[in-house]
Amino acid sequence: MKKLINAADAVVTESLAGMAAAHPNALRVDIDRRIVYRATPKEDGKVAIVSGGGSGHEPLHGGFVGAGMLDAACAGEIFTSPVPDQIAAATTAVDCGAGVLHIVKNYTGDVMNFEMAAELIEMDAGIPVVAVVVEDDVAVEDSLYTTGRRGVGVTVIVEKVAGAAAEEGRSLAEVAALAERVCRNGRSMGMALTSCTVPTHGRPSFDLPDDEMEIGIGIHGEPGHHREKAAAAGEIAERLVEPILAELPPGDGSGVIALLNGMGASPLIELYIMYAEVARLLESAGVVVERSLVGNYVTSLDMAGCSLTLVRTDQEVLRLWDAPVRTPGLCWGD
Amino acid sequence: MKKLINAADAVVTESLAGMAAAHPNALRVDIDRRIVYRATPKEDGKVAIVSGGGSGHEPLHGGFVGAGMLDAACAGEIFTSPVPDQIAAATTAVDCGAGVLHIVKNYTGDVMNFEMAAELIEMDAGIPVVAVVVEDDVAVEDSLYTTGRRGVGVTVIVEKVAGAAAEEGRSLAEVAALAERVCRNGRSMGMALTSCTVPTHGRPSFDLPDDEMEIGIGIHGEPGHHREKAAAAGEIAERLVEPILAELPPGDGSGVIALLNGMGASPLIELYIMYAEVARLLESAGVVVERSLVGNYVTSLDMAGCSLTLVRTDQEVLRLWDAPVRTPGLCWGD
Repeated sequence: MKKLINAADAVVTESLAGMAAAHPNALRVDIDRRIVYRATPKEDGKVAIVSGGGSGHEPLHGGFVGAGMLDAACAGEIFTSPVPDQIAAATTAVDCGAGVLHIVKNYTGDVMNFEMAAELIEMDAGIPVVAVVVEDDVAVEDSLYTTGRRGVGVTVIVEKVAGAAAEEGRSLAEVAALAERVCRNGRSMGMALTSCTVPTHGRPSFDLPDDEMEIGIGIHGEPGHHREKAAAAGEIAERLVEPILAELPPGDGSGVIALLNGMGASPLIELYIMYAEVARLLESAGVVVERSLVGNYVTSLDMAGCSLTLVRTDQEVLRLWDAPVRTPGLCWGD
Repeated sequence: MKKLINAADAVVTESLAGMAAAHPNALRVDIDRRIVYRATPKEDGKVAIVSGGGSGHEPLHGGFVGAGMLDAACAGEIFTSPVPDQIAAATTAVDCGAGVLHIVKNYTGDVMNFEMAAELIEMDAGIPVVAVVVEDDVAVEDSLYTTGRRGVGVTVIVEKVAGAAAEEGRSLAEVAALAERVCRNGRSMGMALTSCTVPTHGRPSFDLPDDEMEIGIGIHGEPGHHREKAAAAGEIAERLVEPILAELPPGDGSGVIALLNGMGASPLIELYIMYAEVARLLESAGVVVERSLVGNYVTSLDMAGCSLTLVRTDQEVLRLWDAPVRTPGLCWGD
C-alpha cells in the first residue's frame, strides 16, 4: 500500500488538521471531536443542517460545510459512523433556535447513531431534530452495511437543496420536506475499475482482475452487483443509466440534475468522457438534463471508477440548486 | 490498462465533448479545433487571456475558462502541444481590441507553437500578443521536454491573477507585468507514488516498485529527480518544501499562496494530510501562508502523487487572487 499518509490510524485526524490549515477563514475544525463547523457566526432563526458519516468520501461531508450548505459535519473513522456524542455536540453547537436537520446516509450504524444523538439532544436540550435518510443506490436492496438501499450521490444534492432552503429562512418542517422530496426523486448507480484500500487494512478490499470491472459498487469497498469484462465508456454508461431510469422513468416532462461522480482515483479527463456518454443516453431517452456536475464529490478513498446520480427536479428544487453556495467542495455565485 | 474511455485516440475530443455537455451555459467548446471559450459575450476593451497545452492535466487549462480567469484554452493531444493554427484561431476569436496575453508552460513544443501563433496573428490581424512563459519546477534544469525549467503549478496562479487584472481593465502591458511577477516569485516541486498511463501507449510511462516513490517528477510521466523508498507524508513534505524554499527564501516579510496539488489519482483525504505537513514545515520556516488551495488542479492523467507550489505575494497579487472567479475548475465569490 502506497499512500500520502503518516500512520494508518491517524488518517482521519491528520486530514482534518489539513482541512483546518487550508480553510482557516471558512471552517473551524474541532479535531479532537472530529467536527467541521462554519467559521462564520450563527444566524438567529435559521434551521441548522448537520450531516456526517464515515471518512473516506471526501469532500463529503466536511467539504460541504459553508454558506448555502451544511452548518456542521461529523467525521467518523474510515467507513465507520460518527458516534452519538459527537453528533449531539455538533447539533447543539449549531442550533440557531429553529431546530436542526440531520442528513443521514442509509447505513445501519449511521442511522442508529444519528437517532441516538437526536434522542439525547431532544431530552437534554429540547432542540427539535428531524432526520432525512438518503437511500438512493439502485444496485442492491440490502448490503453488508445496510438494510434497504445505500445512501450515495443524492446526499450531495440533498445537502445543497436543504442548505439553500435553510438560508431562505424556511422552517424545519419545510426544509425537511424539501430534503425528502429530493431523496424520493433521486437514484444512483456506481462502478469500479479498482478496489479501494482502507489504510488500516493495508490491502485492497476486493480483488479485481486487470481485465474486469465491478458494477453496482458501494462507497465502502463492499461487493458490487456483478462483475464483468472491463468495457468502453459507452457501455459503462449504459450500465449506470439503465437501472436508474428503470426506477426514475422520464415522461412527466420534468428534467433532472445529473451528477457524474468520481470515486477518488479517476481523473477528470475520464469523468468528462463518461459524462459525454451519459448525456447522449439521457438525450436518447428523452430526459432533459437541467443542471450537471462532474467531479469527485462522494469518493471511496483511492478507488478508480465513477457513479451516476440523477434527481428529478421541479422549479423550486432548481431554484434552490442555483442559489449561491460557498464551501471548499462546492461553490458558485449569484 | 483500465480507464473510463472509449478509443485511446479519441480521449481528448470525447472529453471536450463531455465538458461541452456539462457546462452548456458557461463554456462554448469548438470540439473540432479543440478550443474551449467562455460562453459569455466579449467585453470591449478587456485584455483577453489565452492558455493551452497538452491534454491530461485537467482541469488545466479548459477548466479555468470563465469569468475572472481565461477567455480561451487550446487543448493538444495528451502531453502534446496545441498547434499554431489552433492557438491563432483562439487568440483572434477572443481579442476584444486590447490585445491578448498568452500564458505558456515552458515546454519546447508549447513555446514554439505559441510563438508561431503570435507571429501569424500579428502579421495577419494586427492583434498585439504578449507571452508569459511559466517555468517554476525546481526539480530539474532541463528535461526530456524542456530547455530550462518545466512549467507546472504556478500556471494556475498566473492564470487567476492575470485573469483578475484583465477584468479590472488593466492594459496588456500591465497584465503581462503582473503575470511575470507571479512567475518570478513562484516555484513548484512534485512527487509520484505511481506513474501515469498514456492511453495510446497502454502501459505506465515508468515502472515504480511497490515500495518506492519518485521525487521531482514532471507532469508528463518524464523521469523525476531521484527515486527513494516510499516514506510518510511528513518526509514527503520535506522533499517538496526544502528545495522550493532554497530558491524562494522567506524573510522579507511577504507571505505566500500555497497550492497543494493532486496528480490525478490521489484522493482529497490524502492531499489534506500532505497539506497539514506542508503547513507545519512552512510555519517552522517562518513562511506565512496567506492563501491556500488543496485539490486536483494540474494533474498528470492517473498518476498518484502530489506537487507543492508556493508563490510569494504582495498586496496587489493577493487582491487579484481574492477577486471573484467562476470557472468549472476554480470558483469563489465576493
